[in-house]
Amino acid sequence: MSQRNRIEIVIVTPVAFHDMPLLNSVGVHEPFALRSIVEVVTTDGTYGLGESYGDSTHLDRLQRVAEQIKGLSVYDTNALFQTCVESLTDDAGTGGDGMAGMVTTASVADKVFSPFEVACLDIQGKLAGVPVSDLLGGRVREKVQYSAYLFYKWGGHPEDPDDEYGPALDPAGLVRQAQKIINEYGFQAIKLKGGVLPPAQEVEAVRALRAAFPGMPLRLDPNAAWTVETSKWVAKELEGIVEYLEDPAPGIEGMAAVAKEARMPLATNMAVVAFTHLPPSISHNAVQVILSDHHFWGGLRKSQILAAICATWGMRLSMHSNSHLGISLAAMTHLASATPNLDYACDTHWPWKRRDEDVIVDGALKWVDGGVVVPTTPGLGVELDRDKLARLHRQYLDCGLRKRDDTAYMKSFDPEFSAKIPKW
Amino acid sequence: MSQRNRIEIVIVTPVAFHDMPLLNSVGVHEPFALRSIVEVVTTDGTYGLGESYGDSTHLDRLQRVAEQIKGLSVYDTNALFQTCVESLTDDAGTGGDGMAGMVTTASVADKVFSPFEVACLDIQGKLAGVPVSDLLGGRVREKVQYSAYLFYKWGGHPEDPDDEYGPALDPAGLVRQAQKIINEYGFQAIKLKGGVLPPAQEVEAVRALRAAFPGMPLRLDPNAAWTVETSKWVAKELEGIVEYLEDPAPGIEGMAAVAKEARMPLATNMAVVAFTHLPPSISHNAVQVILSDHHFWGGLRKSQILAAICATWGMRLSMHSNSHLGISLAAMTHLASATPNLDYACDTHWPWKRRDEDVIVDGALKWVDGGVVVPTTPGLGVELDRDKLARLHRQYLDCGLRKRDDTAYMKSFDPEFSAKIPKW
Repeated sequence: MSQRNRIEIVIVTPVAFHDMPLLNSVGVHEPFALRSIVEVVTTDGTYGLGESYGDSTHLDRLQRVAEQIKGLSVYDTNALFQTCVESLTDDAGTGGDGMAGMVTTASVADKVFSPFEVACLDIQGKLAGVPVSDLLGGRVREKVQYSAYLFYKWGGHPEDPDDEYGPALDPAGLVRQAQKIINEYGFQAIKLKGGVLPPAQEVEAVRALRAAFPGMPLRLDPNAAWTVETSKWVAKELEGIVEYLEDPAPGIEGMAAVAKEARMPLATNMAVVAFTHLPPSISHNAVQVILSDHHFWGGLRKSQILAAICATWGMRLSMHSNSHLGISLAAMTHLASATPNLDYACDTHWPWKRRDEDVIVDGALKWVDGGVVVPTTPGLGVELDRDKLARLHRQYLDCGLRKRDDTAYMKSFDPEFSAKIPKW
Repeated sequence: MSQRNRIEIVIVTPVAFHDMPLLNSVGVHEPFALRSIVEVVTTDGTYGLGESYGDSTHLDRLQRVAEQIKGLSVYDTNALFQTCVESLTDDAGTGGDGMAGMVTTASVADKVFSPFEVACLDIQGKLAGVPVSDLLGGRVREKVQYSAYLFYKWGGHPEDPDDEYGPALDPAGLVRQAQKIINEYGFQAIKLKGGVLPPAQEVEAVRALRAAFPGMPLRLDPNAAWTVETSKWVAKELEGIVEYLEDPAPGIEGMAAVAKEARMPLATNMAVVAFTHLPPSISHNAVQVILSDHHFWGGLRKSQILAAICATWGMRLSMHSNSHLGISLAAMTHLASATPNLDYACDTHWPWKRRDEDVIVDGALKWVDGGVVVPTTPGLGVELDRDKLARLHRQYLDCGLRKRDDTAYMKSFDPEFSAKIPKW
């Protein structure tokens, strides 16, 4: 095998970027979001990029693997995955997922593997002179649509109490937020993160969005904040209004119970977040839409396997997002572009990120009418901006945050706050 | 996108090679086996190879697609598959599978797609300078084990009544056959094609093989020739003797009924031969081992999806074979080498092919101790021998056969023969 394919250097850099006080069922986003930037360099100097969670537990795992994969071929993702599995042998195996406790049972090895796999595919594309979308079977769409991801939010963090978006704590505030985001990006679908206010108020918010944006597909995602009974009530209220209801109640059993009565499809990125969850979910018909996410489903090729499983069992496919930077957006876009059975606009937190904070060179990812044009240059089509990376790494060092904890941050304002779900 | 990736020429060549009178539940192999050889050439002259069934119906379908894929990128397998689907719009959609009626419900589009996908991967590998196994995630084994595939057979076809292998119509004959094949290839597992003699005689044959080859994994495959009741009886007789029982009874329901009592895993390449069969089979726990086959599961990447589905649902994986030439053996070997959860030695008809009949340049596929060493040169690692191809194409033109029909050939000897299953 050619030496040029060998991994010679692996660098994992934690970064922090400003985030806004976005509310969810377990708390509120802290002033900074953390990510890990993975850079893999081959013997001939070709480099590939990956991006993942930035919590210290996960960061440690990535750094351990980084030491162990030197010498592997960038094509040998089987060995790379096995290295990840073996690196976790003495690991407690819980937490560290960077999702504030909202996803706890996914395969840890898949999460650790993901950014390295993406970086290897980036390199494979560069070596072959083709975009990652080509490695994944070719683009079935030249532009990938994303949804306007609305959040209940405060006006700002204490140190910046009047941020660009301002407060959104009622239907009118959310409609204003939607208008601002859609004006800038042109999104053609809307997702509301719920689980924040009592269900009747969130139903009212969705109705207000429907009135303000007639014909626009809508979704509501309370992050499993409701009981089965409450979920059934919301499902009835929002019949004909939302294209799907996302994670109304906790767990496969809870979702299955809701699904028996709900007229719209139920979607999840909480009840089914690893391959081991698919057999029980399918046998109970718990969900009808899976929100895939290459960060926890084990990279781009495994996400394609998930897509094929959805097609085989007649489930639909959408895409989940956490707060992320440009490397993740590029990877999500390539994956979505090469997935024929992607049925919905993907989620992204992109609008909540400051425009000048990223780790990639500007200009590679172009937004047009709510979608990202799939890069056609080799690999992911994004290049590392080392000055920006250094700046966000410095910000990581300075900000003091080492793990995402929306609940603790919320409790600093409201000591009585409970993240227990279901809440209503 | 680079022009060098574009498909410029596609040539589909039917070939015929000598076959022996191998018996099965629907008849007997004819004097020639038919295959289609697919050659895809890009604008820069790089060529890739695929191999598939040679029946005229299938050949027509391949030739129709060959006309329609010019100009596509060899990376754009999504568009290639869509072309296959659309090319079948006006097609009756049945038959043409080259499997003598033993598999009739698999996705026709997947079968048509397969050899083109393999040829495109061959080219992708050549362009990147890596073997196809690397494109599939890297080799987890450097050598792929195959099984000694035994057949009840006559001494020869009428025009060559005393072939190299001679007759095998009783336990002693099969043991002799196994010894000859194992002496030459070093196989470390044995599969017997059954469904030919009454079940008690086939049980006796397996016992004789067990006695002659202690410790060697054994399998029996009657091609669904038995009722559920007979299958249960055989399963009881062969408990602790075979590693799996392959397609004892017809259909998912039949297999599920047998599985309820059989102590060994049941395997199939008849009841579950397309992605649409997986949900009902899994919900009935009809089979515990899937024999994958990239020729009808839609190529190498879709076979990897099948493998992942098997891993996810706790099914095991083996590999099916029809009579084939070296391009197929190379593709099967690359696929198997990059599939971590391949649990058994793969099937191959290789020993039944004359050593001097193939379409590839000699020497690329080396047999060692019952396995094929995975080629490590770019692409599939096999090159077309155009003189040999011309010779086997001439043989196709001269032999007169245009579709595989084991039953009609059998009836020419035994007008009373019935291919109806279950038979016992």
